[in-house]
Amino acid sequence: MESATIIFQPSGHRGKISKNKSVLEAARELGENIESLCGGKGSCGKCRVLIADGSYPKYNIVSGRNNISGWKKAENRFIDKKNKKKGYRLACCAAIKGDVLAFVPEESRASKQIVSKRPHLVTIPYDPIVKKYDLIMDPPSVNDSKGDLERLLGALKIQYGREELGCDIDVLYSCDIDVLRNLPIRLREENWHVTVSVWMDKEIIRILPGKVLDCFGIAVDIGTTTVVASLVHLNSMKILDTQYIMNPQVKYGEDVISRINYHVHNKEGLAEMSADIIEALNSMIEALLRSTWPDNTSWLSTEEELIYNEVQKQRAKTEGKFLCLTPEDIEDVTIVGNTIMHHIFLKLDPRHVARTPFPPVVQKSLNIKARNLNLNICPSAYIHILPNEAGFVGADNVAVLTAEAPYKSDQIQLIIDIGTNGELVLGNRKRLLSTSCATGPAFEGAEITFGMRAAPGAIERIAIDPDTHEVVYKVVGHDAWSNYVKPGELQVRGICGSGIMDLLAELYRTGIINKSGALQKNQKSPRYCANPETRQEEFVIAWANETAIGRDITITQKDIRQIQLAKAAIYTGCKLLMRELGTDRVDVIKIAGGFGLHIDPVKTLIMGMIPDCDPKKIVPIGNAAGTGALITLLNREKRSESDWVARMVEYVDLASLQGFKDEFIEALHIPHKKDPFPHLEPIVPLEILFQEKNAVLKID
Amino acid sequence: MESATIIFQPSGHRGKISKNKSVLEAARELGENIESLCGGKGSCGKCRVLIADGSYPKYNIVSGRNNISGWKKAENRFIDKKNKKKGYRLACCAAIKGDVLAFVPEESRASKQIVSKRPHLVTIPYDPIVKKYDLIMDPPSVNDSKGDLERLLGALKIQYGREELGCDIDVLYSCDIDVLRNLPIRLREENWHVTVSVWMDKEIIRILPGKVLDCFGIAVDIGTTTVVASLVHLNSMKILDTQYIMNPQVKYGEDVISRINYHVHNKEGLAEMSADIIEALNSMIEALLRSTWPDNTSWLSTEEELIYNEVQKQRAKTEGKFLCLTPEDIEDVTIVGNTIMHHIFLKLDPRHVARTPFPPVVQKSLNIKARNLNLNICPSAYIHILPNEAGFVGADNVAVLTAEAPYKSDQIQLIIDIGTNGELVLGNRKRLLSTSCATGPAFEGAEITFGMRAAPGAIERIAIDPDTHEVVYKVVGHDAWSNYVKPGELQVRGICGSGIMDLLAELYRTGIINKSGALQKNQKSPRYCANPETRQEEFVIAWANETAIGRDITITQKDIRQIQLAKAAIYTGCKLLMRELGTDRVDVIKIAGGFGLHIDPVKTLIMGMIPDCDPKKIVPIGNAAGTGALITLLNREKRSESDWVARMVEYVDLASLQGFKDEFIEALHIPHKKDPFPHLEPIVPLEILFQEKNAVLKID
Repeated sequence: MESATIIFQPSGHRGKISKNKSVLEAARELGENIESLCGGKGSCGKCRVLIADGSYPKYNIVSGRNNISGWKKAENRFIDKKNKKKGYRLACCAAIKGDVLAFVPEESRASKQIVSKRPHLVTIPYDPIVKKYDLIMDPPSVNDSKGDLERLLGALKIQYGREELGCDIDVLYSCDIDVLRNLPIRLREENWHVTVSVWMDKEIIRILPGKVLDCFGIAVDIGTTTVVASLVHLNSMKILDTQYIMNPQVKYGEDVISRINYHVHNKEGLAEMSADIIEALNSMIEALLRSTWPDNTSWLSTEEELIYNEVQKQRAKTEGKFLCLTPEDIEDVTIVGNTIMHHIFLKLDPRHVARTPFPPVVQKSLNIKARNLNLNICPSAYIHILPNEAGFVGADNVAVLTAEAPYKSDQIQLIIDIGTNGELVLGNRKRLLSTSCATGPAFEGAEITFGMRAAPGAIERIAIDPDTHEVVYKVVGHDAWSNYVKPGELQVRGICGSGIMDLLAELYRTGIINKSGALQKNQKSPRYCANPETRQEEFVIAWANETAIGRDITITQKDIRQIQLAKAAIYTGCKLLMRELGTDRVDVIKIAGGFGLHIDPVKTLIMGMIPDCDPKKIVPIGNAAGTGALITLLNREKRSESDWVARMVEYVDLASLQGFKDEFIEALHIPHKKDPFPHLEPIVPLEILFQEKNAVLKID
Repeated sequence: MESATIIFQPSGHRGKISKNKSVLEAARELGENIESLCGGKGSCGKCRVLIADGSYPKYNIVSGRNNISGWKKAENRFIDKKNKKKGYRLACCAAIKGDVLAFVPEESRASKQIVSKRPHLVTIPYDPIVKKYDLIMDPPSVNDSKGDLERLLGALKIQYGREELGCDIDVLYSCDIDVLRNLPIRLREENWHVTVSVWMDKEIIRILPGKVLDCFGIAVDIGTTTVVASLVHLNSMKILDTQYIMNPQVKYGEDVISRINYHVHNKEGLAEMSADIIEALNSMIEALLRSTWPDNTSWLSTEEELIYNEVQKQRAKTEGKFLCLTPEDIEDVTIVGNTIMHHIFLKLDPRHVARTPFPPVVQKSLNIKARNLNLNICPSAYIHILPNEAGFVGADNVAVLTAEAPYKSDQIQLIIDIGTNGELVLGNRKRLLSTSCATGPAFEGAEITFGMRAAPGAIERIAIDPDTHEVVYKVVGHDAWSNYVKPGELQVRGICGSGIMDLLAELYRTGIINKSGALQKNQKSPRYCANPETRQEEFVIAWANETAIGRDITITQKDIRQIQLAKAAIYTGCKLLMRELGTDRVDVIKIAGGFGLHIDPVKTLIMGMIPDCDPKKIVPIGNAAGTGALITLLNREKRSESDWVARMVEYVDLASLQGFKDEFIEALHIPHKKDPFPHLEPIVPLEILFQEKNAVLKID
């Protein structure tokens, strides 16, 4: 298939794309996020791009409007004549015929909110934990017959000096025993020119031939349900690939308590669950590494294949297209997760975390050799596991804090991270309080009639028309909203967490429920009904013919109560933390969502889940735990900051506070707002920041 | 069998001994070294002891001369009436009939030279590497729900304070992952009262129930031929047991070069040899541990036996007789050895050490987790391997230096350690030079017609009568000299290193050879002959009827040349080091012997192996490498001193020095002495210092 070069600006993403693909398809392949509500059908008009016309020596490209397929009728709806003349097109309607330089205007960029509102996340200075030094040594001679390691350390001292190395090399530097075993042959085969990888200015963990300064790491977020791992090129701070899988421990139970119970009742339970997550991580590592190889390369399984791969690797590297990384190339890993996931991963007994007063086995961060955890990376490298704050506020929350750094701010920040539990942090540079509030599993889709995990077929966003009470929704795995597709095309199966989050606000905003959460009877829309079996009032979200399950997907009065309990738990937590801190206002509210849980700030205000705040000051921060895992992978100061903040933050046990019950009952209601509701248009789900391929973390 | 209590003074050794055993036999069982040349036949008179008569409440004993068997005729030869009345007896003639307190006079004590001349060795302050702290904690509560590890570290901080802990515990203390895995159950089972073992003020490597401050370690000296391991109670600095075995690598070759060759020519050679020494060390560790158990206890092999042992252990401990140590109880190990043994043990490629310019893989000391070396001790503990000085001056020499500490002395010391190579160190606090001189294997018994290892049947000491040229000798494994036994009883098979060392001096002293080493013809003794096959002159050491091999054991002219080459190598090394240091005198000469190589200082002077020196200033220091291994096991400051001295000492390559050849040729001769030879009586081999059971290392 013939291909052409396409470059997106201002991101700089570029690559070879098969001709006749649309610019939107090209954008997806190259990791450029262009907004699209209809999923590429030319019916939403969100994917406008400007096609450059001319020669661009800087990019070594001649772009032209002739390199794009002809104007389509559908485009007339969204692009006026003036803009058409300028060169604007809908990315979904423009097929590639030759080299193209495309500019993506601000309004067409997806995820723009996250990127633009969180500059502190994308300006981490280069300060890696594993540093690489290339060294050229004189071979041993009669007058200089010191040991191979001492020769290497001597060269390190001479070439880089104490200042750069940050310590007295003679005293502090050690060398992993396996590396030492390879040292003599490496030095001689490479004619005394090698690169060493040094961990924490302390230990040599790898030796490479010649000059190889590229360094790779993986940041892992072990969620109760989902595990995310990102492969990062540490030198450029670029994310090369991200893998998501379901936590295989789900088979032992969906929530942390059932996993603890599995351990308590099965002698080998902890070992099994630990082995499962480690196997899963190894498969993710393999997939991440595979993404750096040509597609049809077989993976390290037999010796023959290894030799074949070696040939392929040389070829691929020569062509400059692939990195061809092997497990040895991964020299640093950070891991975050809630306390239970943390404990199971490390095979630490988690049972006491489930019983008052919920003490974890360990709070401080740990560095463990990869070979001792059976993780299939460079065996001498260290796995860094972030610290826990308390039994129910784990390393994932520390990661959120490290990403958001409220401890550096004068503003009082409220950070809400919603998963199976809600984790709250409130404070600023003076004092930080954290707590965990038992939201129950409603936000995860459990205990809701049609609740489900954020899997294909799950409704993740909902909007209701205030006049007609008609419903539109968006489903996991599809870009298009329901009003842009034929009924049944979305194969709806249920509602996941983020859909549930939208629901309460939309029901109240449109008058379908009142402030106490009761469904209002005598509405004219056919979506109201009383289920004859359960005798419960229901509201239909999706009609049977739109679903894959052949019956109406509804929300019941009981479901609404469950959602109220969950949101009240968070509201009560916020309020009590504010009381503890002695403040009646918060300056900023940051809402972190777990995976597939993308929260609309305004709706959280409407439903009364968070304290009053200027909606502009409510910032969704995506998977901030994952961001924290990445940041601590990239920056040594941030890593020690995470150790510090885990000790600095004070854990507050909500249940032990006075007035908890009263506050909670009060919080069940939906608050009365005097102001008109802000204009709500269907909101595109916020992409998880690090889902993007080649996202540039380092800007300055 | 009925038993009685016997106590030896001034050493304090005491124990229960079966009645009717001789006092000499009792001494051996209890680790008391009493001199005996005839091996207990009542014919040498060296084993005089004083039997106390009276009640000794301090020792809880009533001793009496009636508790000893009657006077024997043989004793009249050695004990006069006055001393008989005082209570003197020959230990070999006095059988035990009841409780006895025996005083061993200075002249009857073996090894006295070593013990009395090396007080600095036996006054190491208590400064262990692994420290134990017993901790009592409050259990977790609602107001204090910190992590188990943090609770433990908090207790450590409160109970012992920063000063005692020597560091900022929050930052530096970590915990081995396996220990962490056991922490929750240990703390709760023991009701929050445990003891922790902390390595180097850094890492918790073990957790024990309640208060258990006893700490045990093993010091290992891996020789090319012999491996020695001592089990030490670190708190009291007592050596509980010492094991000796032949290095199993001997099957790959007797010397280091043939082992390197085995590695070079066999793909798995290094792995095999490494596995062999580790297996051997594990068997020694097992034997050392076994020595702390009742005799008939079966050893950890099946689960059933483990349970049985647990019962036995409780019983034995209750009776207070046995320590019942298990592998887990060994929390520290130091290892010394020459560079090649060091490399093979660690599976480091030793081939480059054999080729000019002889660089080792590593010089600095290493700390490696026991579990990563497969040593069967506490798996979280560290194995400390002392540093190497250079390719041919290894960790064993660093251990010698650490034991002797010439770097703290104003006197210029010459330290000679003779094994397969001669290792020399010269200098004082200002400057230290070291070198290795290729003595060849003559001193190890190789390349000598009847040379052999120091094994049963090997002649280890020789004395020749200047008038009659009659020969007496002592054989490994027998206490008695040849003139005290019937011919053939000693089953002689050859001559080992120390016998060879004696030989040249004795041959010259008695005029059998001249100063150039030539056998003097026309002697009247029937011991001179010319071998008709080889046409070589020979001198008979042992007649065929005294041997186990059925022919005369002789020394040939060619053998004598080999010995001359070896002694000349050492002499040349000494002289050239003196020249390098710019001194024409040495204040002290210390001679360390390998295993089975116990050198007579005066004979080394006679044969011209060492520079001129007052014989009183020639100090045999036994297995100083083993001593160094023990010292660095016991004392942290000494351990870092060993790191320091390995860098401080300057290695001198003899072959590259001007005048090496001339000096060497000159040194082949036996020097002419004006002074009469000092009186030489047959000298009892000096016991290796740490062969004694219960030797008290800590005196002050």
